[in-house]
Amino acid sequence: MSHATVIARQAREAYDEAQKALSSLRADAADASRVQALELIRAGLEARQEEIREANRRDVAEATELAEQGRLSRQLVSRLDLFAKAGKWESMLQGVSDVARLPSPLDICRRASRLAEAETGSNARPASGNLDLYQVTCPIGVLLCIFEARPEVIINIASLAIKSGNAAILKGGKESRHTAAVLSSVLASALEKSALPRFLVQTVETRDEIQALLHEEDYIDLVIPRGSNALVKSIQREARMPVMGHADGLCAAYVHDDAVPSITIPTILDAKTDYPSACNAIETLLVNRAHLTSGLWEQLVRALVGAGVKLYLDEALLAAAQKAVGESDALAPVEPEHFDTEFLDLALAARVVDSVDEAIDHINAHGSGHTDIILCAPLGDGNGASHPAAEAFTRSLSSSSVFVNASSRFADGFRYGFGTEVGISTGRTHARGPVGLEGLVIYKYVLRASGDGPQTAGAFNGENARPWAHTALEPRYPTM
Amino acid sequence: MSHATVIARQAREAYDEAQKALSSLRADAADASRVQALELIRAGLEARQEEIREANRRDVAEATELAEQGRLSRQLVSRLDLFAKAGKWESMLQGVSDVARLPSPLDICRRASRLAEAETGSNARPASGNLDLYQVTCPIGVLLCIFEARPEVIINIASLAIKSGNAAILKGGKESRHTAAVLSSVLASALEKSALPRFLVQTVETRDEIQALLHEEDYIDLVIPRGSNALVKSIQREARMPVMGHADGLCAAYVHDDAVPSITIPTILDAKTDYPSACNAIETLLVNRAHLTSGLWEQLVRALVGAGVKLYLDEALLAAAQKAVGESDALAPVEPEHFDTEFLDLALAARVVDSVDEAIDHINAHGSGHTDIILCAPLGDGNGASHPAAEAFTRSLSSSSVFVNASSRFADGFRYGFGTEVGISTGRTHARGPVGLEGLVIYKYVLRASGDGPQTAGAFNGENARPWAHTALEPRYPTM
Repeated sequence: MSHATVIARQAREAYDEAQKALSSLRADAADASRVQALELIRAGLEARQEEIREANRRDVAEATELAEQGRLSRQLVSRLDLFAKAGKWESMLQGVSDVARLPSPLDICRRASRLAEAETGSNARPASGNLDLYQVTCPIGVLLCIFEARPEVIINIASLAIKSGNAAILKGGKESRHTAAVLSSVLASALEKSALPRFLVQTVETRDEIQALLHEEDYIDLVIPRGSNALVKSIQREARMPVMGHADGLCAAYVHDDAVPSITIPTILDAKTDYPSACNAIETLLVNRAHLTSGLWEQLVRALVGAGVKLYLDEALLAAAQKAVGESDALAPVEPEHFDTEFLDLALAARVVDSVDEAIDHINAHGSGHTDIILCAPLGDGNGASHPAAEAFTRSLSSSSVFVNASSRFADGFRYGFGTEVGISTGRTHARGPVGLEGLVIYKYVLRASGDGPQTAGAFNGENARPWAHTALEPRYPTM
Repeated sequence: MSHATVIARQAREAYDEAQKALSSLRADAADASRVQALELIRAGLEARQEEIREANRRDVAEATELAEQGRLSRQLVSRLDLFAKAGKWESMLQGVSDVARLPSPLDICRRASRLAEAETGSNARPASGNLDLYQVTCPIGVLLCIFEARPEVIINIASLAIKSGNAAILKGGKESRHTAAVLSSVLASALEKSALPRFLVQTVETRDEIQALLHEEDYIDLVIPRGSNALVKSIQREARMPVMGHADGLCAAYVHDDAVPSITIPTILDAKTDYPSACNAIETLLVNRAHLTSGLWEQLVRALVGAGVKLYLDEALLAAAQKAVGESDALAPVEPEHFDTEFLDLALAARVVDSVDEAIDHINAHGSGHTDIILCAPLGDGNGASHPAAEAFTRSLSSSSVFVNASSRFADGFRYGFGTEVGISTGRTHARGPVGLEGLVIYKYVLRASGDGPQTAGAFNGENARPWAHTALEPRYPTM
C-alpha cells in the first residue's frame, strides 16, 4: 500500500471513528467536543510559540536566501513570516477561537415531510405508523486541502475542517515546511488530548504524495486547492474527486449609461487598487458609449492614472483618455488577449460597449464566474421603480457574485459575514463564491417510521394502495 | 473545432442566451416561458406519436434480433419498448406535464443579510446607502446526461433540464437510436416554437462524442450518468467536470437485537424482492446475534427462501437456517466477496454482528453510501425515550439515505415527494440521495447597494472604519 493510500485511509477511518464517537451525543454536545479540540489547538499554539517562532525563522531565512538568488519572490518571503507583521500571530490564534464560536453547521434539519400517514389495520393492509423524511446536514467526509506559502492557512483550514466535522489532509508550500512541521505536531497533540481521533487532521509534505492522493477517490471526497492559477488548474485536471476553488479571478466592471461619478469613481478605484493582486480585484472595465461624452470617462481616467493604474484601451476610450490626461505611459492600446488576462497588478483592460446586453456578452465570453459588477444610477430601497439594466445584469449573469454599485472587493467570506472562508469557488455545483463552514457540509436523508406495522414500498402499489401524504412537517432534527 | 466542441459550445451559448432572454421577466413569467416550452414538447409528442411508434418498432425489432443471437438481454429489449406495456407512453407524456407543474426551483432567495447600514456623510467618509447581500438560486448551466436503453429518459431529463433553466446534452443507448432521433426532433421543433433557444437541449449519438465531451470542462458544468456500474465508473474516471450519480447500490439492512417480526419480516422481504434489480434493493443483511435464538432469524429465512431468495450465510446463520428450512439449494456459505457484490437479483449475503457498532463498521467498510436501514423495536412519536441503536445508526452513517424500520425501496425521488428524479447520487457534495429539480440548481450571490454614495471595501479599514452590520434580512428576491 502506498504512503498516499495509508494517509487517505487513515483519514477515512478517523472520519468514520469521529462520526461513531459523537453519534451518542446530541448536536450541541457533539459541537462542544469539536470546540474543545479547537481550544486545545489554541492552547498548544500558545504553549509552543517559541518553537514555532524558531521554525518559522528557519523557513524565512532559507526563503530569504533563495530570494537573494532571485529564485523566490520577496512577496512570498513576507507571506511566510508568521511574526514580522504585528498582529499576524495573534490573529491566527483569534481565528481558531472565532471558528470555534461560530454556530455549528451540523445536525441541522433543513426540511421534513410526512411521506405517509399512520393507518390502522384493515383487510387490505396491516396497521402502519407515520413515515417521516428528514433532510439533515452532515459533514462531507475527507477533505484534501492544498495551498501555498502562508503557514497560518494550516491552522485556519484545520479549524474549519474540525468545526464542520470533516477529516482533512493538508499540504502547504515547501517553503514553509519547518513551520508546518511544528504546527502539524501541535495539531496532532491537541487531537490526541481531545475526544476526536488523532488522524482527523494530517499533513503531508511532498508534491509526489499529492499526485497520488488525487487518485484516492475511494477515501477522499473533496479537494480544495488555494494558490496560483497553475496549481489549481493542474489539480482540477488530475483529481478524480470534486474540486472546489478557483483558478482565475477575471472580474469585470460595467459602467452603465446612467452611472454617476459619486458612486462610480470611488468604487472602480477601490475595486482595482485596494489590493490589486487579490482574486476579487477587477481586471476588465466595460464602459457604456454614453460616457465618451458624459465626462465620467475622463474623470475616471484621471482618477485611475492618478492612482498608478496602467490602462489598456480600445480606440475610442484611448482617444478620450488622451484628451483627459494627455499622452501618457499609463495609456496603451488594448490587445485581444488583455481581456483574458488576470493582471493581478495595477493594470486594467477597457473597452466601449453599447448596452448592458453587450457587457453581459463580453463577460459570458471572457469572465471566470468570480465577481462582476455594474455601476448605474443610485438605487432606492427596492420598493420603487426597478432599474432594468441592473436587473438584466444580475439575473442574466451566472457569476458566483454579481454586484450593483458596490466594489468587487466585497466578495470575501469575512465581508459576507461568514466569519471566515475556506476559499472562493467559481465552480457551478455544491458551493459558490466565498465558501464558509456551510460549504463544508452536505446533507443526508433520514427516514423514520413509527408504529409496529411494516413500512413497505409494495403497499403503495396496486389495488387498495396505501396513499402518499407528501405533506411538509416543521423541520426539526429527528429523535429515534 | 471538433464536433464535440461545437455541441458543447452551442449548449453554453444557448444557456447564456436563455438567461438573457428571460432576465427581463419576473420569476413567475420566466417560469411560464419554460412551462410553455414543456407544453409544446408534450403537444409535439402527441402529434408525432405514430412516427415515434414506428421508429420504436425498428429499435425493438433490431434489438430482438440481437437478443435472439444472444448478443443483448431480453430485459433490455423490453425496456426499449415505449408502447408494449400499457400506460408507458401515457406516463411519459404525463411526466412532462408533471414536471411543468412543479414549483420553479429558480429565483428563490435562500437568505439575505445586511452587510452594512446606510450612513449619512461625515468628515471621515461620504454618505453611503445600505449594502445588502442575497443568496438566490440559479441554474447550474450546461448538463451532460448519459443513460442507457430506455428512450423515455430523453424526455424525462429534457423536461427536468428545461424546468430548472439548464441547457442539456443528452446521449441515450445506441439500441434506442431510431426512437431517440424522432424524440430529439420533437424537442428541437418544440424549442424552436418556444421563447427558449433551439440548442438548449441537444442529443448526441456516438460514444466517441461522449469521450470528447467529457473533456469540454469550459462549456459543460455537470455530468449525470445513469446506467450500469461500468458505464458510470468509466465516466467518473474520464470526466473533467463534476459527476453526479451512483455506480454501486450496495444497500444493507441491520436487524437489531430488539427488532420485531411484524416490522422486520415484511420490510426485509420488500427491500429484497419488490424489485431485485433496482439500486435501492438490499444486498447485505446484518443480523444481531440475539436472533440466532430469538426465533426471528428462522422466520426470516423461511420467508426469504419462500420468496425465492438465495442466501449466502456465515457459519452461525447457515446452521440456524438449516434448522429452519432443512438442507436447501437456497442456502450457501458466504464468501468475503459477496459482501462487496451488488447481486441485482434474488440473492442476499448475510452475517451475524454483535452490535449496532459492528453493523456500522461493516457498512462503512463495504457500503456504497446509497441507502442503509436498521430494523429495531417499534418507535413512538419521537417525543418519548430515544432508541440508542437507531440514533447511533442514523447519526454515524454517512450514507445518502438512512432509514429506521422502513424498506430501502423508499429511496426514490417520486416516493420522497420530489415529483420525479434525475437520478440517485451517492457522491458527498452538491446533492445526495434521490435528486430532483432542487439538485439541478445552485445559487449565486447578489450584492445590492442603495443610495448615491460609494461602497468601497477600503472604507471598512483603518481609523474611523465603517462598521459591519452582518444582520439577517427577511429573504426576498432583490429588485434593483
